[in-house]
Amino acid sequence: MINQALVIAAIALIYTSNGFYRALQASLGFAIIGYVATDYIIPRCINLFIAKGFTGKDLSKKGKPIIPETMGVIPAVIYLFLMFWFIPFLFYKYLVTGTNGGGNRLNGVEELKDLSVELFPHEKLASYLSAFLTLESTIILGIADDLLDIKWRHKFFIPAIAAIPMLIVYYVDFGVTHVLIPTKLLQSYFGQSLIQLGPLYYGYMGAVAIFAPNSINILAGVNGLETSQSVVIGSLLLLNDCVYFFSSPHDSPAIESHLFSAALLIPYLGVSLALTKYNWYPSRVFVGDTFCYFSGMVFAVVGILGHFSKTLLVFLIPQIFNFIYSVPQLAGIVPCPRHRMPRFNEEDGLMYPSMASFEEKPLGSTPSLILRVLSKLKLVYIIEKDGKIIQVNNLTLINLTLVWFGPLREDKLCATIITMQAFIGLVALSLRHMLGFWLFGYDNLFKAASITV
Amino acid sequence: MINQALVIAAIALIYTSNGFYRALQASLGFAIIGYVATDYIIPRCINLFIAKGFTGKDLSKKGKPIIPETMGVIPAVIYLFLMFWFIPFLFYKYLVTGTNGGGNRLNGVEELKDLSVELFPHEKLASYLSAFLTLESTIILGIADDLLDIKWRHKFFIPAIAAIPMLIVYYVDFGVTHVLIPTKLLQSYFGQSLIQLGPLYYGYMGAVAIFAPNSINILAGVNGLETSQSVVIGSLLLLNDCVYFFSSPHDSPAIESHLFSAALLIPYLGVSLALTKYNWYPSRVFVGDTFCYFSGMVFAVVGILGHFSKTLLVFLIPQIFNFIYSVPQLAGIVPCPRHRMPRFNEEDGLMYPSMASFEEKPLGSTPSLILRVLSKLKLVYIIEKDGKIIQVNNLTLINLTLVWFGPLREDKLCATIITMQAFIGLVALSLRHMLGFWLFGYDNLFKAASITV
Repeated sequence: MINQALVIAAIALIYTSNGFYRALQASLGFAIIGYVATDYIIPRCINLFIAKGFTGKDLSKKGKPIIPETMGVIPAVIYLFLMFWFIPFLFYKYLVTGTNGGGNRLNGVEELKDLSVELFPHEKLASYLSAFLTLESTIILGIADDLLDIKWRHKFFIPAIAAIPMLIVYYVDFGVTHVLIPTKLLQSYFGQSLIQLGPLYYGYMGAVAIFAPNSINILAGVNGLETSQSVVIGSLLLLNDCVYFFSSPHDSPAIESHLFSAALLIPYLGVSLALTKYNWYPSRVFVGDTFCYFSGMVFAVVGILGHFSKTLLVFLIPQIFNFIYSVPQLAGIVPCPRHRMPRFNEEDGLMYPSMASFEEKPLGSTPSLILRVLSKLKLVYIIEKDGKIIQVNNLTLINLTLVWFGPLREDKLCATIITMQAFIGLVALSLRHMLGFWLFGYDNLFKAASITV
Repeated sequence: MINQALVIAAIALIYTSNGFYRALQASLGFAIIGYVATDYIIPRCINLFIAKGFTGKDLSKKGKPIIPETMGVIPAVIYLFLMFWFIPFLFYKYLVTGTNGGGNRLNGVEELKDLSVELFPHEKLASYLSAFLTLESTIILGIADDLLDIKWRHKFFIPAIAAIPMLIVYYVDFGVTHVLIPTKLLQSYFGQSLIQLGPLYYGYMGAVAIFAPNSINILAGVNGLETSQSVVIGSLLLLNDCVYFFSSPHDSPAIESHLFSAALLIPYLGVSLALTKYNWYPSRVFVGDTFCYFSGMVFAVVGILGHFSKTLLVFLIPQIFNFIYSVPQLAGIVPCPRHRMPRFNEEDGLMYPSMASFEEKPLGSTPSLILRVLSKLKLVYIIEKDGKIIQVNNLTLINLTLVWFGPLREDKLCATIITMQAFIGLVALSLRHMLGFWLFGYDNLFKAASITV
């Protein structure tokens, strides 16, 4: 009953959408449909996925129950097909322009063609379509990863391959590869306000497209964490869009970029919230690498095509920290066990930081010194024996959270991490808009947003 | 060594491509790369697919060996990623227009933007991108079908769902929904040369997009048949494109449609030929529903966006015959066993038509009469007992081929079917161009090709 009512409300929202924020109203309708569809389909696919053997073990529960795996592909595919239906609504104002006044579209090939060349924003449509080619490629490669256990050094580049259609369309279609130089001082030093980056800019966009999906895929392994961190990041990006809606004139180019961003994010949040419901502690489904890549790529697409990829990176600070924090283990300076997930204690049902042990291979003096300093700074937890470090917590943000606040039940652990994420994001958002004002000056801020900030 | 040489030749072809047929020369280069890549990757994935359990049994061999299944997804994905890299080459002439004369692209946002709105064929780019969204959707839904065993009545509509992005972009972007009325006589009767079909036209395009992929998926089950029929149909379509290249002026709209078609088909033939090598008798890999849907959708996309979907249907005559021939069994008039594949005789290694038996449930008098008439026409093979029909060959083109020419070894059977396909296609192609001249008149033929023939 509630679902039917929601769908009716969604259809009403879509069909009555009007005025400047038409795209946003319609996207809210699509978000509701996405939520209801995901919520409807996921529980009905659980047995099918288990029967077909797409399963994983939940190691942090008593008895290590079998949970269906890769279920995040369902909201991802629902999202894509919703976004196809969204096309006529997103490009509505241009469609209406091409009528003969009576509400009918123009007949006759020649007339329609001439008008459409002038009025229809094909360059925006191509961007939009290239975004979805990239997202579909992400899903296909994510499925391959989930099903075929691709090696780590290969899977790291999956998002780069998936980003190719977007970058190529960007190249033939838009081709803007300069960035704004911050502060008047530096601008006068360079004698210009823009730096032409050329091919380097494609390298940078590729790096963003590699980093965002992988960073979400790495901060994972706790019930609900993949989905809830994605919802938090998506919400922060949407909040950032709203800042522009409330502070910029409606015809500024920044508004168009952020309308595009919000229109993609709102339905994304719809399907992701429904998935979170099933992925939250105790998880009834696992989401799979596919969903992590997909989420990260939604953010990368929005950041790159909306020209605010640096703002995106600000919202990924916990993920960036997690990555840098992991480097000593990934680089082999500190031993790296096969799994670095926190340790589940069956007796009290709580999670404890998991430890890397090196009793047999003692650390050199420099790494030991660094670990001792980090330990003083409360950034690692070390266990010593006879004056030597024999264990250190595995270097992930999840374990560090447990060092700070643990032991915690799994859902508290997840909630703590995403609260940090939300808090850091909100502080960064405030700083970014205050500093942006200071760095670029008020006028430039909004002009710049259409280029790249 | 041969592969390396081929790749070098391909790169040379791509980079030296020039003049009017630049797109075709580049697409030949991409076809070679697609062939080499598919030929390289498939054998290296066989063990992986078997280990992961993506396998099927080859029922028409001694010992029913285990064969990796769904391998057609590899050429399909390779094709897509090649076609992304193809974008700058396909839209090259427009890119070059946007330079400042010295070979450098224009700098400065505003200048570039103004020029690109006028010169860059965004409406073509959007069509191209929508085609690949549809193909990627086909792959995703095909994988779901292969992995999750979707029910027959659901899977029939998979191509319709996958076609949505293409049809929606067609709607917002092109919107031409009239067809040319054949013959001057009918044109003067209607008082116009075009009929406006409106929404009906979308129904028609949807039907083509449903029919082409399913028709290839249905004519399957013999080693090599899925791939080789696809190669034959693709070659016939390409031949049809060539007829236009040699007979039309270079600036006619028909040429542009057929350049688009050929540019998509040539790399498709490259990857498909490599797959055929492994799928041909005795099959080392099975292709899966994914590949059949994908192939059919390539043809549907080319036919719909190239505006010659009726010509496409002409090349699918064996598939259409196979479908109509199956109707009595699909509709339940004649009993339909679970599998209708031909029967393999282990002793002589030959294939025999498989039979539907209804000794227990005798046929009514009308169906019996029809079967007797069809038997006289050599369109069915019946077995009678006491003046009653007790068995009839399963109503598929494959079994009928065996009734006509059998028993045959599996590769001979496949070769016979695709020879028929090629022969019928060539006859149809000749008739179509002669009749087209007679039906539409010479001028109209080529004007019409840009609308719909």
